[in-house]
Amino acid sequence: MSKELTQISEIGEFGLIDRISKLFPVEDEGTALGIGDDAAVIVPSEKDILWSTDMLNEGIHFDLTYTPLQHLGYKAVSANVSDIAAMNGIPKQITVSLGISSKFTVEAVEALFKGIKQACSDYNIQLVGGDTTASAAGLIVSVGILGEVDPDRKSLRSGASKDDIICVTGDLGAAFLGLQVLEREKQVFQANPEMQPKLDKYKYLVERQLKPKARIDIIHELRDVGVVPTSMIDISDGLASELLHISKASGVGVRIIEDNLPIDSQAYDAAVEFNISTTTCIMNGGEDYELLFTISQEDFKKIEKHPDIHFIGYVHDKPNENILISKQEQVIPITAQGWKHFD
Amino acid sequence: MSKELTQISEIGEFGLIDRISKLFPVEDEGTALGIGDDAAVIVPSEKDILWSTDMLNEGIHFDLTYTPLQHLGYKAVSANVSDIAAMNGIPKQITVSLGISSKFTVEAVEALFKGIKQACSDYNIQLVGGDTTASAAGLIVSVGILGEVDPDRKSLRSGASKDDIICVTGDLGAAFLGLQVLEREKQVFQANPEMQPKLDKYKYLVERQLKPKARIDIIHELRDVGVVPTSMIDISDGLASELLHISKASGVGVRIIEDNLPIDSQAYDAAVEFNISTTTCIMNGGEDYELLFTISQEDFKKIEKHPDIHFIGYVHDKPNENILISKQEQVIPITAQGWKHFD
Repeated sequence: MSKELTQISEIGEFGLIDRISKLFPVEDEGTALGIGDDAAVIVPSEKDILWSTDMLNEGIHFDLTYTPLQHLGYKAVSANVSDIAAMNGIPKQITVSLGISSKFTVEAVEALFKGIKQACSDYNIQLVGGDTTASAAGLIVSVGILGEVDPDRKSLRSGASKDDIICVTGDLGAAFLGLQVLEREKQVFQANPEMQPKLDKYKYLVERQLKPKARIDIIHELRDVGVVPTSMIDISDGLASELLHISKASGVGVRIIEDNLPIDSQAYDAAVEFNISTTTCIMNGGEDYELLFTISQEDFKKIEKHPDIHFIGYVHDKPNENILISKQEQVIPITAQGWKHFD
Repeated sequence: MSKELTQISEIGEFGLIDRISKLFPVEDEGTALGIGDDAAVIVPSEKDILWSTDMLNEGIHFDLTYTPLQHLGYKAVSANVSDIAAMNGIPKQITVSLGISSKFTVEAVEALFKGIKQACSDYNIQLVGGDTTASAAGLIVSVGILGEVDPDRKSLRSGASKDDIICVTGDLGAAFLGLQVLEREKQVFQANPEMQPKLDKYKYLVERQLKPKARIDIIHELRDVGVVPTSMIDISDGLASELLHISKASGVGVRIIEDNLPIDSQAYDAAVEFNISTTTCIMNGGEDYELLFTISQEDFKKIEKHPDIHFIGYVHDKPNENILISKQEQVIPITAQGWKHFD
């Protein structure tokens, strides 16, 4: 590490903003004005505008001991894109507000923005503005996102009805197990800094935790086959928590078949190693950024062969009766509440 | 203080969001969906969309020892509305992302949102969403705002040209002097907690610091008389810094007449008392949230009698020649850089 690092005070806030701006020239035709004025200017289309925001705070949502800044930037964007996907929308523009401590270097901020830029490129979105300010304590990454959706294609949490089929994308629990692996390696390293972390066999899990991808691919595929989910939410707090959101907002109940819950083989092995129930990882793990949605029975044929969509249960009309049918055919109430950072 | 306070852990994150949601029913016809789903849904109009964001962090932007939470909520909204005003736009919707430490009570969060609600009412805007999360350190208030503007009426920083007249609204320096008063009273109180703060004669200054108002009134008035500023910016970092932004973005220079700079009499008296030059307070104070703008010569007659718009100088065509003509007719280069939180 012989490279010279630059203190932010050397170039100042405006110098920093100039350097960031150069990374994000406006390439999106819906953006009339990007970084550099009091507000960005967006040209509206005929579609409805989706708007969401998500804040990641050091010491709560991430630990810089094992989180590369580039991945953190990527993840902050993915978490926001995932919210737009959950409305059945397409993401368009983001703003990034950063709170950074004085110990941060210009190079560290640039690493964060390189991850943001890679995410912008992967999701085809434009960074149009934000705010860069000091933080008295840890790093704060607050991202805002605009997206768009045809008014008749939006999927709210409130649209599920009796007999709808409950679907999830990808696999669940891996991000949570990735976090367990990273936390264990951190403790090993703190006990003996000579130790090298052994992460090879957990590669998928660690990537799911550090650099998750939002499922915009699924939104395009559903559009291609003409399916509009009757309800949808992204899985950030854990499947159980998201199921309860849909059941409450829709005034229905859900019945989930444990046998149908998708888990990756690496996650399965890690759950066994950590002696945590795989179903607990799936139901309460969180941060998978997969999509949970419901479809009407008649749409089932259109996606039944999709390799990455799993049918995990169905909707019934008894509100508050949200249950999991276990592999042993036990009936277990779904009660989990997701992350509880305030305890 | 016999009232029982509620810990956030007692009602949980979702319980807290439910309580906040009840404060903000959707009353805006441009908002199709407010708080409660993965994203808000906004119905676009024919106008261009303005989007800005601004983050306030405890220990950097505010000190909770003397900042009532209700005022802080109000100020966070004002700072964002001011950015929309600075584009010659009308604010429409906001999101509020909060990072709060576990010591915060539900009542404290509600006080913050009461201030936000009052601001929403004063500015006629709708809160449509946000994010409520834990913070390992201090309070974080990150607000996003959408506004709208007719495409041919927007005022950028880059539109000033030779012979334009430079205008500012209201008076300057009071917010900075209010901060000096509050900091002094804090030190007095810390030295002797029996002392009661004496703020009566600084009432205007303290209010300017704690509960500033954005000048949307001026935007409506300019519209009414048919004036579109050739350039505009809001005064958050200090007049000098904002003048340099306009001169750089427009490729021009500015010439400012010290004698024409507006200051309130309370601010003048406090500057004398604190032994700080009034011009330093005006040029470098910051946080006044007044508007700095330029108009073409032919528009001058339309606003020359406006009691709250002051004509402080003019634009010339020598870039980088930004000067203040002092009361003694000295020529002083304008070089200030606004707040430097990173030093």
